[in-house]
Formats: sequence, structure tokens, C-alpha cells
Amino acid sequence: MTGIRVWAPNARRVRILTGGQESEMAKLDGGWWSAETPIPADADYAFRLDDDRTPLPDPRSPWQPYGVDGPSRRVDHAAFRWSDGEWQAPPFSSAVIYELHIGTFTPEGTFDSAIHRLAHLSSLGVTHVELMPVPEFSGDWGWGYDGVDLYAPHHAYGGPLGLKRFVDACHSRGIAVLLDVVYNHLGPAGNYLSRFGPYFTKKYLTPWGEAMNLDGAGSRQVRRFLCDNALMWLRDYHIDGLRLDAIHAIYDSSAVHFLEQLAQEVEELETQTGRRLVLVAESDLNDPRVVTPIEEGGYGIDAQWNDDFHHALHTALTGECTGYYRDFAGLRDLAKSLQSAFVYDGHYSDFRGRHHGRKPHGIAGTRFVGFLQNHDQAGNRARGERTGHYMNLSQLQIGAALVLCSPFVPLLFQGEEFGASTPFCYFTQHADPELARAVTEGRRAEFAALGWNTGEIPDPQDPDTFLRSKLDWNEPACEPHKSLLEWHRNLISLRKEIPALRDGRLEDVGVQFDDEKRWLVVKRGPVAIACNLAESKQSIPLPFEGVVLLASKEGGSRGSAVDLPGESVMIVADAQNTERINR
Amino acid sequence: MTGIRVWAPNARRVRILTGGQESEMAKLDGGWWSAETPIPADADYAFRLDDDRTPLPDPRSPWQPYGVDGPSRRVDHAAFRWSDGEWQAPPFSSAVIYELHIGTFTPEGTFDSAIHRLAHLSSLGVTHVELMPVPEFSGDWGWGYDGVDLYAPHHAYGGPLGLKRFVDACHSRGIAVLLDVVYNHLGPAGNYLSRFGPYFTKKYLTPWGEAMNLDGAGSRQVRRFLCDNALMWLRDYHIDGLRLDAIHAIYDSSAVHFLEQLAQEVEELETQTGRRLVLVAESDLNDPRVVTPIEEGGYGIDAQWNDDFHHALHTALTGECTGYYRDFAGLRDLAKSLQSAFVYDGHYSDFRGRHHGRKPHGIAGTRFVGFLQNHDQAGNRARGERTGHYMNLSQLQIGAALVLCSPFVPLLFQGEEFGASTPFCYFTQHADPELARAVTEGRRAEFAALGWNTGEIPDPQDPDTFLRSKLDWNEPACEPHKSLLEWHRNLISLRKEIPALRDGRLEDVGVQFDDEKRWLVVKRGPVAIACNLAESKQSIPLPFEGVVLLASKEGGSRGSAVDLPGESVMIVADAQNTERINR
Repeated sequence: MTGIRVWAPNARRVRILTGGQESEMAKLDGGWWSAETPIPADADYAFRLDDDRTPLPDPRSPWQPYGVDGPSRRVDHAAFRWSDGEWQAPPFSSAVIYELHIGTFTPEGTFDSAIHRLAHLSSLGVTHVELMPVPEFSGDWGWGYDGVDLYAPHHAYGGPLGLKRFVDACHSRGIAVLLDVVYNHLGPAGNYLSRFGPYFTKKYLTPWGEAMNLDGAGSRQVRRFLCDNALMWLRDYHIDGLRLDAIHAIYDSSAVHFLEQLAQEVEELETQTGRRLVLVAESDLNDPRVVTPIEEGGYGIDAQWNDDFHHALHTALTGECTGYYRDFAGLRDLAKSLQSAFVYDGHYSDFRGRHHGRKPHGIAGTRFVGFLQNHDQAGNRARGERTGHYMNLSQLQIGAALVLCSPFVPLLFQGEEFGASTPFCYFTQHADPELARAVTEGRRAEFAALGWNTGEIPDPQDPDTFLRSKLDWNEPACEPHKSLLEWHRNLISLRKEIPALRDGRLEDVGVQFDDEKRWLVVKRGPVAIACNLAESKQSIPLPFEGVVLLASKEGGSRGSAVDLPGESVMIVADAQNTERINR
Repeated sequence: MTGIRVWAPNARRVRILTGGQESEMAKLDGGWWSAETPIPADADYAFRLDDDRTPLPDPRSPWQPYGVDGPSRRVDHAAFRWSDGEWQAPPFSSAVIYELHIGTFTPEGTFDSAIHRLAHLSSLGVTHVELMPVPEFSGDWGWGYDGVDLYAPHHAYGGPLGLKRFVDACHSRGIAVLLDVVYNHLGPAGNYLSRFGPYFTKKYLTPWGEAMNLDGAGSRQVRRFLCDNALMWLRDYHIDGLRLDAIHAIYDSSAVHFLEQLAQEVEELETQTGRRLVLVAESDLNDPRVVTPIEEGGYGIDAQWNDDFHHALHTALTGECTGYYRDFAGLRDLAKSLQSAFVYDGHYSDFRGRHHGRKPHGIAGTRFVGFLQNHDQAGNRARGERTGHYMNLSQLQIGAALVLCSPFVPLLFQGEEFGASTPFCYFTQHADPELARAVTEGRRAEFAALGWNTGEIPDPQDPDTFLRSKLDWNEPACEPHKSLLEWHRNLISLRKEIPALRDGRLEDVGVQFDDEKRWLVVKRGPVAIACNLAESKQSIPLPFEGVVLLASKEGGSRGSAVDLPGESVMIVADAQNTERINR
């Protein structure tokens, strides 16, 4: 284990506090400081800069057992006994992702308790678990996007050991682990980075706070701070890939964009280790550059979330048309997203008041992640409503079929598979009363502006808002949850069995629809997904004479058409071509 | 002539004041307003928004005869009688550019008076004149980068008619005209745009003020405002190309960058008209994406200024090593820039405190503009010193030879060709006393921080600072100016006569140098430029047995070497290959 070092380029003096002792650190080149004497593994420590009285945690602290303001604790990564020696992650292009929030996935809200639910995920057919951010954030619970100790798994989740045990357990069940990392800003509480160095810039502004300094003076080490963080998760925690939060707020004018550097470094690690590693971006840019290979002038990110597909699908099912949904309407947009990934690929967006996006020519569907909901789509609604709160079972089944038979990599949000009745609210636990009040009032004001009665908006700081958001694991065994779970299981099986359903070639996706009659048929090679979104039964044309593979309600196939009951979906195979299904 | 329209999306009411009358404008779609009654050509007019008392000039005002705060005046572009019907600009790749500031180029400081000096430029061999910004800015004189009425040629320069006469006269002499346009910010005085619409954003910050809103709500019309401005200069003023100021401060996260949109629209105009139009960027990014074609993922700008070449050349000649010059040293950097355009192409820059740039693989040298000085390199020195103030005649001759025989498109700054003894100071004429004081004190503080005595720093607001910056046209006829002018004329002739000197293939540029002995030889096909930067005579190896084409001092060629006097340069042709010179 090497000694402790810290980057503090502006400090005139740095002391380390550990074991009741305070000692001077030695100044190295480039603004780095080094502890001269060995410090035991598992020791707690903190830094004192210049003449400051308050000891500060290590910006690269591997563990904050007492929270964001407490001392840091050393972690000996070499000491963990991994049992995943033979592990290789499944290819991302055939993934089924399950987004999971450790704090609410189980009643206990820990990595260890989550391990006990992996059997559920295995039997569902999940290939990749995607953890919402785990780095230490202010309080004992929260979504995690306001993390401040980016190297330290949250103390309340079980810290470094808990995360390692979780990843190891996932791997032993054949499940890969993706981790959501936030590189666009740091949280407001417990953020001491600017005391150490020029981590932030005033040149750009994010909606959540100061932007990271990725292209100004001193940015070299800020970029290293983030790239090293990514590499650490992949290397020391055996994480199989990262989901990069809101990359549209990662501002960088450098000739080599931070994302490109990151992709390059992850690729190098991939080459060195022979492991399959993946980077997935959340992007609000609709810019194909994000997922274009570096050789072709892109950033080289493997895939990105496809919000347009979600919005089109959501509005097709619900008819909702407020907020960003007002940019989407009808089956035409849903059809376009299934065939072109982006609905907005260069034309005017009314909601945005500007032109948006660019055509992703030749980019495979498997470079996009498709979903019916995610943590944001639930949690950013006034009361944390999941799809199950505003769609009926039939609609949920249609939605699931379109996601799980889509040309995109499908993602489910925890509990979606059984239509969890619990909400997923926005919750925080800030100790600072001023910040706490600001969060509570900010949330109320946001929805008051949309016409809500503030009394109806759950208070993010109320512990009950968090507790109510935990999944109820009695539900999967009871109806109607049980049937919906079975439906998801069957769809996932189908996707795994039929290569055509995992085929990412968007140019091969056929879509026919009738906006007025409200039906839509998606053709994926020898398979078709026929949806009747209308309330009453109707006959829907098929691209071939079909054999029923799966149906949400009983319907009757008649030659090259099918009689589908109201609000139902049927997946059929080409009767002349069943061998092409390759089951 | 169509009616007057204005974009004022947030206004509830817009009135137009003209001919002593005030009348309501009609609201159109998309935030536009239209004057209902016809308004005569040449009429003065202004707008009144909502209940404001102060009439405001038109954001797209074509003429501000009374300055930035006065009413606008209509201009009938169709009325001008152009005489350049047969005009076609020479190819940019073989250009010799002359940067010119209308206010100081002649004693009168007008477009019309500049016409009288075109004979000088013709005889020098200039192919493109590049005008420093002409849009209306605060005061009667200034550099022009703080323009606020982007569609209006400055009243003191001679307004729209003056500019048209100037361009027409240039064309009649075979000289193309480039115009410097500032699309990264607007000036602080007379800037009423934010009263009309969301022209600016707080998401990004430029060093000079609010950034343009190119990717937020309402940005569609802001982008149109700037693109239409570019097209107007090219179309209505017959301008042959634009120099885009400081594109590193044009922030845009859209999937289609503003620069790409601009390049696309200019290309469309080029196709429609058959004219040769060009876009040249000033870029501090060292990012090849700027000059990479759109099809290859770039912004599609034709060329960009090459600051690295300037800095390397400047430090090689002067040994200066403060400020940004501290990143450059020795002939190695000069050699690298001659062969790779950028010196900083991905490695660490000490001055910037970060990694900088990217290799411009396969991009031709003719996509870069090379210079020994420009308005900034002179004007941003404490006392506006031109190269002639701190280099001796021999150094100026070497510098000129390296610029004019470089693989880049060479640019001269007005007066450089005869070593003007007048300075080019930073000057302003702000009427607002607070702004005036801020400018004066800001300039003083900037240089005081560098150790200057504030008494030595010319006051930008002092009229004498402006007046002293005007060229003295008696100088070209007197020594030593006359000889230097002749030297430039000869170099330009050589560049025009010998295709190899205009060849932009950087991979074909050979450079040999000895940093200790201070000599450098640049091989450009069958021609070599041999420079002795040392003070005493020395023998310098040539890549071939040479025939002297041009020499700044008398030297002796001996086989494949040449004896060069101290501080001199010789241009030689390959004796075995004189036919390859193609003179």
C-alpha cells in the first residue's frame, strides 16, 4: 500500500492528522503533497491546509465512515478476496439492465441486503444491474447525485466492503454491475474540493452548481481526479461499466474532450485486462458525436440513454402533454424513435424553444438505452409516481413489450417488473437546516409553479418520503404484480431467445401504424410486435402470416392480420419463417 | 424594399417612431413584429417597446448615422451601382492577406480615404484585404470588437455607402475583401439587444461580457441574427469572406454547432452564386475540428489563424519569454509549427496550466493563416509596439521571409510592410464617463500587474492614443522603410511566382536547424529558405546546391552550403532543379 498523497496546489502547508498525531506533509512536484510516515491500513485521517483550524477529508477519500464532514479512512483494496476470477461481463448489446437504488431496493437499504434480492433479478433475466450513484453524499439517504467524496462508497450503504461483496455476488450470479457516476458537478454539502485546488470553474454554469474545471488552468489534475475515479471503480471494485450522469453539463472546450479522454483510458484498461468494460452516457444533446467512435471524430462512448424513445412511448400510452411531453405526440413519434433513435434530430423543439439534435446516421440501436421509466421519470414527478400509478395493467404490458422488443438496450427501473405500488419520491437528508429548507422549498416552488397544491408535494427532507419509496417485497408474489412480473420474465426470455429482437440495425426495423385507430406494428425480422392502443378490439394488419409467441390478452390471428382486444399486445412470428427465429 | 420587421418575443407592444409619427406594429408569429405602413428609403426610425420611454435602435439596423444610441436609418441595398459584375475572388490558398483598420489606415480614417491607398496594396501584391470590425460601436473611433449594431457599418468610417464603394474599388483592383466579425459577445455601450429578446445567456461567460445564447430557449432567432448578418455582408456588401473573431468564446452545446450552421449557410450561398466565399476563424483551441470538413465531423471553417506559428517565430527572433511567450522557445518550436501547424497539439502548456491542442492530421497548411504580427500582437503590448519597435531591420527581414515563404496563408498587419514607426495602441472613445474610467483603469491595472509604471501606459480614452496610431504615409518613400517595403514586395512576388512556396502540404516541408548556432533552413520542394539568426556570419548546410533567388544581405553559396552574414536570410533554388520552380 503506497503512502497518502494529496493534490493541494495552492496550499503553502499541508498537515495530516492521524492516530492523534499531526504531521507535516512533504511538498512534491505539481502541487502534490505526501505523508512522510507510514499510516496503517484502516486508519482514520484528515488534512489541515495552511492555518485552517478545521481538518478536511481527503478529496480522494476511499471511505467516509462518519459521513461527508468526518475524517477519511484508508482502504486496502488488495485485501479483499474476490471470487470472480473467471468473470466476463455479457456483451452490452444483448444486455437487459436493471436500475437500482441501494437505499430503497430493500428495507435495510444496504449492499448486503441487496445481495439477497439477486435471485429475483436472476430469475427475471437481468444481465446488468445499474446502481444509482453510491459515492458519499450528505446524510444517511438520498438519490446520490449530490455526492462529494467521489471515491468513497456511501457509509450507510455499507462502505467499500459492502460494495465489493455486492459486486462479487452479482458476478457469481452472472450479473454485470454498472455504476452511475456524476462528473458534472459536486453536491452542495460536504464539498471541500475548492479548498484544495481549482476543481471548479465560473466559465460555465450547471443547473446544480459550479461546473467542473476541465479546460482551465489546473484542469489537468481535475481531469485526472475524474478519470482516476472511473478507473478505480472498474479496477478496484470490479465494476463492469459506468453510466455517466448528465454529460450535457460536462462543459469542456479542450481539443480533446474530457469524455474522449475517459473513453480512451477505459479502452486502455479493457485492452490491458481483457475485460469487457462499457461507458453509457445520459445525454440531453441528441448529439450522435457522443456515441461516435473516436476515430470518426466522436467521443467514443459506447451507448447513451434515449430519452426521445421514452417520451414518445410515454405520450403514446398516456396522452400526457405537459412539460417536455408537449414535444411528443402520437404514434408517428414513437415509430420514428424506433427507426431513428432520436425523434428530435435537427428540427425545432417547442419545449426547448430551439432546434434540437442531429441524425444519428448509421449508429446501431444497441448504442441507445430504451426504457418505459427510470429514476428521473418517476422521481421528478410531483409525488414520485411510477408508471404503475398512472397506467393500467394493459398499458404497462404494452409498454414493457415495446421496450423489451425494441432495437435498444432495455432498462427497467427497480420494481417496474412487478408494477411496484410504492412511489419513488425525491428524498434528501441534509443536516444543514438552511440547505434542508432550501431543498424543501425549492421542490414545493417547482411544483407550485405547475399548479400543484404545495400540501400535496412530499417534503424531500421528511424521513417518511424516503421510507415510503422503499420497494415492498411482498408484492411480487401477489396479483396483479405477479402477472406483470411473469409478463416481464416472458418478454426477457423472448429477447434472449430470438436474435432478431436484439438486432440493433435500425434500418431493419419496420413500423406500421394508424394514429387515428391507435394501433402500431413493429417488425423486427421474422417477428412482429402488434399493439392495439385503442380501448376496443380491432383487426390489425401483420407483415406476414403470424404464429403467436406471446400475447397480453387472448386474440385471434387470421392470415396476415390479427384481431387484438382493446389495449393489448401480441408478439407473433412469421409462420413461413419460424426457423429464422432461431430459438 | 420590404417593410420593417423586428424580433421582440417578450414585448407586449411595439411601436415604430419615424417621420415624427409613432405607430403600432403588428404582431406576427414567432415573436416578430411588422410595421404596417410603408416607410421611405433613407428614413430614420426607432422602436419603443411596451411602456418604455426611450426609443431604441433596430437590432438589425443597417445604419446608425448618429451613433449607437441614435435612431436607425433605412438602407436600400438594391440602389447601389456595383461595377464588379465579373468579379471572382482569387483562391484563398494562394492569398496574401493585409489586415487593415479603417480608422488608422489613413489620416481621414474612412472607407473612401482607404480607397486612395489601394494602389499601394496592389503594388505590394496583396490579394485579400481584411478589415478589422466595422459594425457600429460606441464612439467615433475604436478597434471595433465592441460593436453593438452588427448590421451597420460605422458612421465615422462612412457608413453603408462608404463600405460599398471601398469593396467595389478593391474588386476593381483585383483585391478581395475579408471582414472581421465578432459573434462571441457584444460591446458594453449601446447594447440594447437584451431588451428585445434572449440574445444572451448566463450559462457561459466570455472574458468580455455575456455570451451569446446559441443553444438555449429562443436561440433559433439568435443564430439567425448572426447567420443573417454573415450572409448580409457577403450578399449586400459583396464581401468575399469573414474572419470570425475568437471562436473559442462562441459557446454552443447544440448537436449542430453554430459555426457548422454558419459554414453550411455560407456554402449554400457560394453554390447559389458561384462566388468564392471563405470563412477564417480566430481560434485559441488548437482544435483541428474547427477546420475539418463537416462530412468528417468538423465545423467546416475554411481556415484559422495560427497563433502557435506566430509565438514560435516571435520568440525565435526576439528571445522574449514572458506571458504566453513562455510556452515557446527555440528553433525547435518554430520548426514544429512549420511542419505541424500547431506547436501545442496535445501536450502540457505551462502558461495555460493544462494540456492544449490536438494533432491536425492531414490538414493542409493553407487552412492556417501565418503572421509575424497582427492587430492584437501589436495592440495588446503595453504601448502598442509593432515588430519594428523591438526587432531590427535584419530580424524583420528574416521574419517576413519565414511568413511569406511559409506553408500557411500569410497575413501582414497594416504598415508592417514598411516597418511603420507609428504604434498601434489600444484606443476607445466611450462617452459614458464610468465606462471610460473603467477602460482606462483596467488597461493600467493590467500592465501594472506586469510591472509597468502606469504613467508609461497610453490612456485608451486619450484622443492622442488614437491619433498616434494612424499610419504615416510619408514613411514608405523613406529609408529604412522603403527597403523593407521592397523586401516584402520581392517576397510576395516570389510566393506568387513559385508554386512550391504556396504548397500547403505540411508533410513536404523540410526543416533543419541548430538551436545552439542559431540557424534554420526550411525546404519547400526545390526552394530553401536559409536563416542565420546569430549575430555573426556562419556556414549553413543547404539541402541542395543552391542558386540565390533573394537575399537580405550579401552571402556566398558554396556547393551544398551557404555562408550567411549575421542576422540574414537567403532564399535559394535547387541548382539541379530550376525548372521545377516553374517561375
